[in-house]
Amino acid sequence: MTAVPLPLGFSACGVTCGVKDPSSPKKDVALFVSDRPCAAAGVFTTNLVCGAPVKVTRGRLPRSTARAILINSGNSNACTGEQGLADAEAMTAAAAGLIGCDKLDVLVASTGVIGRFLPMDRIQNGIAKAYTALAATADGLHDAALAMMTTDTVPKLSTRTIKLSGTTVRVTGVCKGAAMIAPNMATMLCAILTDADLKSDDAAACIRLAVQDSFNCISVDGHESTSDSVMLLANGAAGVGPGSPADLEAFQTALNEVAQELAMAIIQDAEGAHHFVQIDVVGCRTREEAFKIAESVANSALVKTAICGADPNWGRIVSAAGYAGVPLREEEVSLVMNGYPLYENGRPLPFDAAAVSQSLRDHREVTIGLTLSHGSAHVRYWTSDLTKEYVELNADYTT
Amino acid sequence: MTAVPLPLGFSACGVTCGVKDPSSPKKDVALFVSDRPCAAAGVFTTNLVCGAPVKVTRGRLPRSTARAILINSGNSNACTGEQGLADAEAMTAAAAGLIGCDKLDVLVASTGVIGRFLPMDRIQNGIAKAYTALAATADGLHDAALAMMTTDTVPKLSTRTIKLSGTTVRVTGVCKGAAMIAPNMATMLCAILTDADLKSDDAAACIRLAVQDSFNCISVDGHESTSDSVMLLANGAAGVGPGSPADLEAFQTALNEVAQELAMAIIQDAEGAHHFVQIDVVGCRTREEAFKIAESVANSALVKTAICGADPNWGRIVSAAGYAGVPLREEEVSLVMNGYPLYENGRPLPFDAAAVSQSLRDHREVTIGLTLSHGSAHVRYWTSDLTKEYVELNADYTT
Repeated sequence: MTAVPLPLGFSACGVTCGVKDPSSPKKDVALFVSDRPCAAAGVFTTNLVCGAPVKVTRGRLPRSTARAILINSGNSNACTGEQGLADAEAMTAAAAGLIGCDKLDVLVASTGVIGRFLPMDRIQNGIAKAYTALAATADGLHDAALAMMTTDTVPKLSTRTIKLSGTTVRVTGVCKGAAMIAPNMATMLCAILTDADLKSDDAAACIRLAVQDSFNCISVDGHESTSDSVMLLANGAAGVGPGSPADLEAFQTALNEVAQELAMAIIQDAEGAHHFVQIDVVGCRTREEAFKIAESVANSALVKTAICGADPNWGRIVSAAGYAGVPLREEEVSLVMNGYPLYENGRPLPFDAAAVSQSLRDHREVTIGLTLSHGSAHVRYWTSDLTKEYVELNADYTT
Repeated sequence: MTAVPLPLGFSACGVTCGVKDPSSPKKDVALFVSDRPCAAAGVFTTNLVCGAPVKVTRGRLPRSTARAILINSGNSNACTGEQGLADAEAMTAAAAGLIGCDKLDVLVASTGVIGRFLPMDRIQNGIAKAYTALAATADGLHDAALAMMTTDTVPKLSTRTIKLSGTTVRVTGVCKGAAMIAPNMATMLCAILTDADLKSDDAAACIRLAVQDSFNCISVDGHESTSDSVMLLANGAAGVGPGSPADLEAFQTALNEVAQELAMAIIQDAEGAHHFVQIDVVGCRTREEAFKIAESVANSALVKTAICGADPNWGRIVSAAGYAGVPLREEEVSLVMNGYPLYENGRPLPFDAAAVSQSLRDHREVTIGLTLSHGSAHVRYWTSDLTKEYVELNADYTT
């Protein structure tokens, strides 16, 4: 794969410490360190049952002096009470001790089995090993991406390079996807690094905007995880920041693109999926209404199984829009699937069902376009189909 | 099966007219007629994309002079525009002509493939055939239940007999379940008949209450249909009604029990299901909060696949409660599954996972008890697990 560049002033690595499996070579600790203080911001799960690292990290953001992001996979630190909070704090303290910073300047995330305490001896060992690895191979970004994976089948990285006031700035992100190992649940984690110079408030505003049109517009099964975290570190090592409105727009666009590419990679790698589904809802009164309709369609088991079966089932799509909680009349709705108009202004259109079905079988990527006649607001949303393999992966047959 | 009695003054039948398949003996027209005017009320889908019969029937209720309910299966009359409305009106007119009543006194429902116009010649023929059948066999309730089925595997009937002021009163219901034939979607239809004497406003209040704790507390896949209809006819042929508060309570209880038994029968017959899941959420501030939590758990694909796999995955259940939109802290939540305490006041309990898993494999019926420490409101909710068979049934492989 093409090497994804680390922004200036950052180092990253992924190492093995045996959290996933003491006898496995699978990497399970990722560390991202900046050689100077960073503006840092994050967006986290809104699930009220959330992991200890979410509680610890959320409380530290936004800040202007962050130095590192520490992530382990193989064992999430959720539903673990006071001990879990102490462990998350201890992880940040251990990394901070090696880096030489305040523990509050280390952000932390954990993903994997829930309801089990972290094996802190192995984790401590992993943190020490990671810090050593950083010196040996500063650019271990790919290893870091591997160390974040649970049931992901591929590491997920994305990058953009832009010019701000004539100077090159890099935005690079890695993430892991919505995937589960029993007794676990869907979790997505993402770290985005940039050498642009940002104030922490701007970092917070930028990451919130980027998440809105990326990670908040994807769904595999609608089950909101306890650990979802997206964190941004901006260390200013490039020597410039988005000073002008045009520069800010360029930076935001790059950040949005990295976030969207990673979000789409999560859906591309969704468990058991045969199809990657892009849903465009246009012509709405507000983005919120467009979002509600897209989410309702994306989360319908009937829509998702129909796509799995290459069935151009417009009725399931239109009816999912009908219960989205958005005022609408059938006559205001039209639907196009893979370029085929199926439904227009409340009436089913005659169409070649065999041809549309063949198109669904021939293309892993499916497009659904829902057009309303309410206004000009729109949203783009990504989901996967629902397959027997998904059920198999998540039914976790213990026999 | 035990014969389910028709309330006095009612006749019912189910006949074959070839809507499902011209060459099949499958019944597809059901007719329920009262020999005198009925108080009538109904509860319908809240999906804004709804079938023509829903629009027609909803507009006629509540009323005090209804005479009949006419239902066809094999072809729903949804997404069919003006023609669909005309067809639904024509169905009621045809039945009314034979019965000798105003067409407004005939309620109508259709279930089956959507987006196709009804084959009105066959339907008209079916209505005539049904009216003739009523004279031949007044008690064709079982046939009527058969004629409502789509992919249901068994007809669904329930009855209760109570005494009001010393006189026997019957409440009998039939329904079809949430099941689909592509390109169709989940639809439930229910007709409940009673010979109690009710005012139409009371009928409306009673059916609304009964639906609240039955059909509104079930979910197979969370996809709200275009045609869901529950209709109650009360013809007073028993000569008594619920005059006193105690009688009203007795009547409401009987109605609730019939509705619950039918709702549970729908889940028992849910497509591809291996498990019938009863979720009790107790200790909430309000019923609405309990309901939100139960619904969130019931609709989680991760919870449903875990149950399919006999996996006592408390994390998925607790986290589904966490994103239900109800303010809560982990420490306020406890969970019992099939009688095994798994999670208490925010902490996972040590438990014999093999034993709980074996219990899930050994019992088709699964109980989930979620206890909060907020108050005394509670709800009971029923759902099914998510299996590979569900995906297969709904993916409608066209190859």
